[in-house]
Amino acid sequence: MSDIGKNASKNRRWVLASYPEGLPMLDNWRLETSPVPEPGPGEILVRTSFLSVDPYMRGRIAPGKNYTQGVGLGELMVGGGVGEVVASRHPAWKEGDIAEAMNFGWQEWVVLRPGQSGVLAVNRIDPALAPIQSSLSWLGMPGMAAYFGLIEVGRPKPGDTVVVSAASGAVGQIVGQLARLAGARTVAVAGGPDKLSWCRELGYDATVDYKAETDLEAAMRRACSDGVDVFFDNTAGPIHDAVMPNLAVGARIVICGRIALADQFGKPDIGPRFLSQFIVSRPSMHGFVVFDWWHRRDEALKRLAALHRAGKLRFKEDVIDGIERVPEAFIRLFRGENFGKQLVRVRV
Amino acid sequence: MSDIGKNASKNRRWVLASYPEGLPMLDNWRLETSPVPEPGPGEILVRTSFLSVDPYMRGRIAPGKNYTQGVGLGELMVGGGVGEVVASRHPAWKEGDIAEAMNFGWQEWVVLRPGQSGVLAVNRIDPALAPIQSSLSWLGMPGMAAYFGLIEVGRPKPGDTVVVSAASGAVGQIVGQLARLAGARTVAVAGGPDKLSWCRELGYDATVDYKAETDLEAAMRRACSDGVDVFFDNTAGPIHDAVMPNLAVGARIVICGRIALADQFGKPDIGPRFLSQFIVSRPSMHGFVVFDWWHRRDEALKRLAALHRAGKLRFKEDVIDGIERVPEAFIRLFRGENFGKQLVRVRV
Repeated sequence: MSDIGKNASKNRRWVLASYPEGLPMLDNWRLETSPVPEPGPGEILVRTSFLSVDPYMRGRIAPGKNYTQGVGLGELMVGGGVGEVVASRHPAWKEGDIAEAMNFGWQEWVVLRPGQSGVLAVNRIDPALAPIQSSLSWLGMPGMAAYFGLIEVGRPKPGDTVVVSAASGAVGQIVGQLARLAGARTVAVAGGPDKLSWCRELGYDATVDYKAETDLEAAMRRACSDGVDVFFDNTAGPIHDAVMPNLAVGARIVICGRIALADQFGKPDIGPRFLSQFIVSRPSMHGFVVFDWWHRRDEALKRLAALHRAGKLRFKEDVIDGIERVPEAFIRLFRGENFGKQLVRVRV
Repeated sequence: MSDIGKNASKNRRWVLASYPEGLPMLDNWRLETSPVPEPGPGEILVRTSFLSVDPYMRGRIAPGKNYTQGVGLGELMVGGGVGEVVASRHPAWKEGDIAEAMNFGWQEWVVLRPGQSGVLAVNRIDPALAPIQSSLSWLGMPGMAAYFGLIEVGRPKPGDTVVVSAASGAVGQIVGQLARLAGARTVAVAGGPDKLSWCRELGYDATVDYKAETDLEAAMRRACSDGVDVFFDNTAGPIHDAVMPNLAVGARIVICGRIALADQFGKPDIGPRFLSQFIVSRPSMHGFVVFDWWHRRDEALKRLAALHRAGKLRFKEDVIDGIERVPEAFIRLFRGENFGKQLVRVRV
């Protein structure tokens, strides 16, 4: 392992310093320096190229119950990443391979143990297929969220009207394009002319600027004159409240994210409930977590890759440079400042 | 038709006098008297024996949009009923037959046109099978609501915990018994010791008195220590809010009724939303209207009748006498004063 020192002797890593109250702040994390770890038998040492920041991580830094275990104070912050194998003590991996995993953590170096299944799997990335950071975006977890959330839960039919909130985000971009391929009319909800313009380039049939509309419910009604058949909701909050009164009979609502409510994380979200709407329009509303679908990861990625090869899937990334800026990149998500999938390039 | 006059020359009928604001009041209807109608070719004249009052009727006397057409001011109030054929001009019907239909209206005499399908159908009732008013309760629309809502939408599995609100009501009684037959553990939520005692007699495994509990959410948590797998909700309101934080992963929520909110009908229902809960527990919430399942009426009634014959289905009725008292009977529903399925006996 003595050759590791040639590249770096230190591992910079972000640990959780405090639980955020509401929106995360920069001082919720602390940058620490530790020695570069050494891989044990069956392990590989990977130098991080890109880290992913995703809204789900907000749930991991709350002391309360969530769908999986959270990060303790002083512990390494969770997060997916992709990087190059620098040393291998696993027979199937060699130096120079590209490894992607959900459990990189916010750090420059990580020791991974290949051979585990599910969300703990270490995946080998083919750099000839797409830029390696795609494995953190359209050809990875966000792509899977779009694929399974839309196809299996939202179940769009030709002629359906599909509304997507955070439509230019990591998941929303893919949802809109898949819904269009499924024969649906697609309506993007996003903030600001640049994002809406990108949504139109992607093929969304209509766009609604939630920041510009004074009566968002009326704007949704105008954009969806036959009602909303599928609502893929990445935000909750005011967009949710504007879409719900516009449901068509039998609508499907996919609750994928709640980023608009991040400032009141852990507190009850008070506002109009829609139980009358549920009886009038008989929709079904489904909670969705992509990790429930991880056993079908290969299927989703194969199909997304094929669509990409055929020129039917486009994608925008928003890349920030430097391990120092991971918390900043994460916080951008909650302010809607990212334009496309937010990534951090750790090593150029 | 001259023999009709032997029995009665007048038809007393309730017309809508005003739209209720919130809870219905007695003066929202007006009792009028008209001549007994005469059946035309292909029609039958029926003398009402029992009328049904059901929560769904609240939606029919609102000026706003609902899932079907409402009652206009001055028009006959809608409602299902059952009665005896007094004169027939339809080849398949004869005097003395028992006819049940959704469109009796609140009146003593009705002319019906057999041969229509769906909710407009006139159904012949076999008085040897069960008391004829059963066709308005467990062997009719409420029974169908319980059957399809639970079996097709709630989809209980053996070992599931099934929570039913308004558990001693027309629909709830059947839901609890069907869920138990499906191998589920059943939890009744109702108001007051008499109703809970009846629920236990019906076989509910646990009961929660929503009127007696000061912390209903904690009471639900105690009663459902492994979480709620199926929530069959007839009430919305505080019971809904107490159950939702206690969902098990993958729970199904059937929104069948919202009677607890009848006092604020047409107004937004403001309170905690549960979108975080949706992401944590990935439930699905389904709006349910029994009329969507009407094409499978025969299947449900055949199965319910078989369970009843086998002694596996019990049912409590709450009968009030007199056409004069139909509005009163209806209003009892919204006060939780009925104990079992509320019926009005029009002719003893």
